[in-house]
Amino acid sequence: MIKKDPIIEPVSGNNPSDGFDPMYQWACDLFPIYRSLSGDGVRETLDYIKALLPGLFIKEFKSGTKVFDWTVPNEWEIIDAYIEDENGNKIVELSKHNLHVVGYSEPINRWMMLDEINEHLFSLPNNPYAIPYVTSYYEKNWGFCLTHKQRESLLPGKYHVVIDSSFKKGVLNYGELIIKGSSNKEILLSTYICHPSMANNELSGPVLTMAIARHLSSLDLDNRYTYRILFLPETIGAISYLSQNLHKMKNNTIAGFVISCVGDQRDFSIIQSRSGKCLSDRVLIHTLKQYCEKPTTYSFLDRGSDERQYCSPGVDLPVSGFSRSKYATFPEYHTSFDDLSLITQRGLEESYSVMIDVLRILENNHKYKTSILCEPQLGRRGLYHKIGVENTGISHKKSSVNLMMDFIAFADGYSDIISIAEKIGCRATDLIDIAKLLWDHNIISIPKLEIE
Amino acid sequence: MIKKDPIIEPVSGNNPSDGFDPMYQWACDLFPIYRSLSGDGVRETLDYIKALLPGLFIKEFKSGTKVFDWTVPNEWEIIDAYIEDENGNKIVELSKHNLHVVGYSEPINRWMMLDEINEHLFSLPNNPYAIPYVTSYYEKNWGFCLTHKQRESLLPGKYHVVIDSSFKKGVLNYGELIIKGSSNKEILLSTYICHPSMANNELSGPVLTMAIARHLSSLDLDNRYTYRILFLPETIGAISYLSQNLHKMKNNTIAGFVISCVGDQRDFSIIQSRSGKCLSDRVLIHTLKQYCEKPTTYSFLDRGSDERQYCSPGVDLPVSGFSRSKYATFPEYHTSFDDLSLITQRGLEESYSVMIDVLRILENNHKYKTSILCEPQLGRRGLYHKIGVENTGISHKKSSVNLMMDFIAFADGYSDIISIAEKIGCRATDLIDIAKLLWDHNIISIPKLEIE
Amino acid sequence: MIKKDPIIEPVSGNNPSDGFDPMYQWACDLFPIYRSLSGDGVRETLDYIKALLPGLFIKEFKSGTKVFDWTVPNEWEIIDAYIEDENGNKIVELSKHNLHVVGYSEPINRWMMLDEINEHLFSLPNNPYAIPYVTSYYEKNWGFCLTHKQRESLLPGKYHVVIDSSFKKGVLNYGELIIKGSSNKEILLSTYICHPSMANNELSGPVLTMAIARHLSSLDLDNRYTYRILFLPETIGAISYLSQNLHKMKNNTIAGFVISCVGDQRDFSIIQSRSGKCLSDRVLIHTLKQYCEKPTTYSFLDRGSDERQYCSPGVDLPVSGFSRSKYATFPEYHTSFDDLSLITQRGLEESYSVMIDVLRILENNHKYKTSILCEPQLGRRGLYHKIGVENTGISHKKSSVNLMMDFIAFADGYSDIISIAEKIGCRATDLIDIAKLLWDHNIISIPKLEIE
Repeated sequence: MIKKDPIIEPVSGNNPSDGFDPMYQWACDLFPIYRSLSGDGVRETLDYIKALLPGLFIKEFKSGTKVFDWTVPNEWEIIDAYIEDENGNKIVELSKHNLHVVGYSEPINRWMMLDEINEHLFSLPNNPYAIPYVTSYYEKNWGFCLTHKQRESLLPGKYHVVIDSSFKKGVLNYGELIIKGSSNKEILLSTYICHPSMANNELSGPVLTMAIARHLSSLDLDNRYTYRILFLPETIGAISYLSQNLHKMKNNTIAGFVISCVGDQRDFSIIQSRSGKCLSDRVLIHTLKQYCEKPTTYSFLDRGSDERQYCSPGVDLPVSGFSRSKYATFPEYHTSFDDLSLITQRGLEESYSVMIDVLRILENNHKYKTSILCEPQLGRRGLYHKIGVENTGISHKKSSVNLMMDFIAFADGYSDIISIAEKIGCRATDLIDIAKLLWDHNIISIPKLEIE
Repeated sequence: MIKKDPIIEPVSGNNPSDGFDPMYQWACDLFPIYRSLSGDGVRETLDYIKALLPGLFIKEFKSGTKVFDWTVPNEWEIIDAYIEDENGNKIVELSKHNLHVVGYSEPINRWMMLDEINEHLFSLPNNPYAIPYVTSYYEKNWGFCLTHKQRESLLPGKYHVVIDSSFKKGVLNYGELIIKGSSNKEILLSTYICHPSMANNELSGPVLTMAIARHLSSLDLDNRYTYRILFLPETIGAISYLSQNLHKMKNNTIAGFVISCVGDQRDFSIIQSRSGKCLSDRVLIHTLKQYCEKPTTYSFLDRGSDERQYCSPGVDLPVSGFSRSKYATFPEYHTSFDDLSLITQRGLEESYSVMIDVLRILENNHKYKTSILCEPQLGRRGLYHKIGVENTGISHKKSSVNLMMDFIAFADGYSDIISIAEKIGCRATDLIDIAKLLWDHNIISIPKLEIE
Repeated sequence: MIKKDPIIEPVSGNNPSDGFDPMYQWACDLFPIYRSLSGDGVRETLDYIKALLPGLFIKEFKSGTKVFDWTVPNEWEIIDAYIEDENGNKIVELSKHNLHVVGYSEPINRWMMLDEINEHLFSLPNNPYAIPYVTSYYEKNWGFCLTHKQRESLLPGKYHVVIDSSFKKGVLNYGELIIKGSSNKEILLSTYICHPSMANNELSGPVLTMAIARHLSSLDLDNRYTYRILFLPETIGAISYLSQNLHKMKNNTIAGFVISCVGDQRDFSIIQSRSGKCLSDRVLIHTLKQYCEKPTTYSFLDRGSDERQYCSPGVDLPVSGFSRSKYATFPEYHTSFDDLSLITQRGLEESYSVMIDVLRILENNHKYKTSILCEPQLGRRGLYHKIGVENTGISHKKSSVNLMMDFIAFADGYSDIISIAEKIGCRATDLIDIAKLLWDHNIISIPKLEIE
């Protein structure tokens, strides 16, 4: 047994005097920027983030680099894109909405018949007022997205199709922020920055991650864990990053979270890791149950973001996805309707509180062991009711003394705070405060095994 | 990792150009033969089977041989048996129905009063038109079985009771067919041939097993597993066989099935092994769920056929029972009503399909591991949709691409095809085809550990 | 395998010629004695028990002894206590009811105003005719308990408050009875003797434990296990005892029971050990299910008696609590309403039968293994029905032959009697008789591993 204070408060909720960071405002600022896998829009976005998180490093992978089964693509630059009718009316125009052009479209400048154009048009018959979000990253193609209403109004005839885009050897950018803790063991936070002009999916993830990172960076107290915080283009970004950092991450990561679609107020959900039982699954499910009665629990079969890479066989990082309304489940998903009206400052703040609780629990999630055989005498330490009247049959809620006694009764050196809280049916965050008190009174200790 | 083609198709369904074997006709041919534990009826039956399965060996155990706790009984020969009234009317007559005489009855030739005879008569008050099936293999006795209606019509008086039977040192016959595979590891198929003139229990088992064996024998492709296919008298046959083959079978058997009562169309059921968790349990339950919504799952407490021996403590073979309407659960069981009207060619064919699926899954049930870290890029291999439009929020059924991605996501080298199919909620047979495709593209491999 | 008779009957139910011990009468005898943690009342109680259990040792811990986190308190003597009004009327009087004075009250002799006295009065507004039971063992204090009705009738004014009590260095007494078995392995029975003048909680526990101990003491047959039977003051008694005996008890205890609140007829319940899975949990739950359809299963969160000490982390004895209506769950709990009308001889006798079954199962709870490969031939041993008519489709209850066959089928050397009974869905006590029969016929044996 080692006896030293393990209770730290690196992430103990927002300072009420500050109020919350203006996450919604950040999302508004970032919304108009044209983001894709790579290019100036991504760099502009990362610069904005770095202004708020000075410790961030903006890094890059070179086009053409082999990363596992993939190759880092060329940079794509888009100057302009439109379809013009014979009267010179621009009827679909990138400058009107970032979603109008298929991501990574090849350049084209040609008069074509509507019939020919049609197989390059994307619209949603069942959602006729929405512009869909479509990309063709790894297949040479071009295309325009438009509302189904507009598409139905197009008259047969000739149109001038212009996509002024170019590909060049360049880089794939990403942001990396490492916040050192007293331990080499790490917690991973990962979000993605490749989606243009959609709000819940995906500006909510980056702005929430920024707020969490600012909170972690500003702490005076030492944090126990090291935090690896990533702002990546989805899929290729995570794959590229893992191809360079896998060994270290496998050795050190104790939990991780892909943060995506966290800005609306309709749901709280988790996308479980492949096993469904890793530490991140356990802490996130426990915490979500404090925020709503029935958080939605998606299995790994419903994965869709970078947990696909982090949890893939052989990579096997203990990573869960955290969402409010998960991607691919809400009606506005991957359309122009996923705009700034879908997310709220309050939705983001609730998500922030969830993640702060999650990290606080992880920082304090020891496997405590009672230092005393049989029940300790709480009375002589002033920890117990003065007199035994509590047991006269008058029912009462579980008092903090009962919670304390239950915690001691299950503090066997094998059960962590989360599992004891689940057994008792209380909040892990409540047990942290109790553990602090008991630690101060030398009633519990931490098995040597657990100290790194 | 070893890289060689593991996908074989030794048991991949019936060749549609052939149609199914005429299993029902075989049952009709075998129905009139008087079978018991041993004797000419059993030999005649085995000769019939060998005519269709030339690889079958007809073998024997000598009467008096000690086999574990048992002794191989003498051969019993029955020439004739009847009860005659004083007017010379034969009122119960073996020649009218094979079930009329209690199996292994001792010889008798005597005039007796009805009162005396009564304790040697067996009938079913609750099923008054059925002749019951009764045997007395290990207790010297004699008796007649008749419908309760007939019994009630017997007038008091004297009757001439004749059983012209004899016992002699002889043999207990059985049929054994070994079909070699590339591995020494074996799959056991066991059925029994000792029941006279009943159809579901038990001509359905032998004729289905014959059809499966013919299919396995005729394959051009090498099968992975060796098949041990047994046509035995129930209980004493299995015990005798195990007494000579236990060591080899314990070393090699990966799964086995007792095939019994598989000819009607009323149910699909499994009798689980003692643990309820062995490979045969898993594959059979998985497969039955593809054939009906709620297959009946009997625990080992409901055992009744040779799984009693194969799964007994110390023998411990991984064997399940496969039935349609299980013995002892259907009203016609062990009576003259279990006749050829109870089973159908279609019932037998459905059972055949179940077992062919089961064996195909077992042959291909590898613990695949993805060869590639992070998700493979299916796109550049032509395995992925051309463009990302599938994710625009339009719901669709799980496509084969999604199935493929899910399979890759769970192919961790520890989970076999069956368990991955259960996780995904798809058919293991679907995954076999997908695994073949991924194998061809070097996306998955088989852990060296698994290769024998 | 070792082959010798393991079936013993040390605790095989009460001898019907004796009838049951007069447990209710014992409770009546003990009811008026003023018991507390220590002192003359406790000694008088132990003397009464010793008269019925001559093997009992009355032992002691000296006041001031350090026992883990606690100190053995001084002896408390109470001569008299009352509140008198100005007219000399004694309005609350210890001599009227033992519960009127707070346990371990300090001496006082003073005229006080009602306002001052009020914070030393305890009553139950929601149960206005009951006197509550209150103690203040470890906090210097004094007080009176009275019905709320009486309290409301007190007029403002001056009262003479007298508590003629004293504290002195003395001892904490307890009773210990060790009944040697053939093995060093032990079963613990623990009950407490510190509650004054309450019947279910807690004279029922001591009188039931006395009857069990008398039964165990009087056995002619050797018992397998050693029994450690304790009559202790609650909490401090168990802690003191463990501080001296923990090492031996941890090495030897295979199961244990805290016996408390076992005299009424309203419920059967278990308070599970911390794991909920130890041998005492398994055998007690199994047995209770034979006595009522739904015994109440309390988790360790509902602990309240000395299982709090026996199951505390680091002590970790396999101990469950056995109750009818558990402490803190019935309306009369810890009040004057928990009197002799609450318990009955019949309630105590049913509890006795439960515990006798529990101990009989434990004594015979071997992990049997069939000595014979494949099914044994019960027929030639006269253990089987004479003829196979039982299987003619006439449904019948599980016969003893079927039970015997099921037992053999699961007797794998790894499953104990309790787990086999749970699988089969029968009573473990039924299997004991069957095991005896099979043992006599050399059909089962006990793995060498299990022999101590």
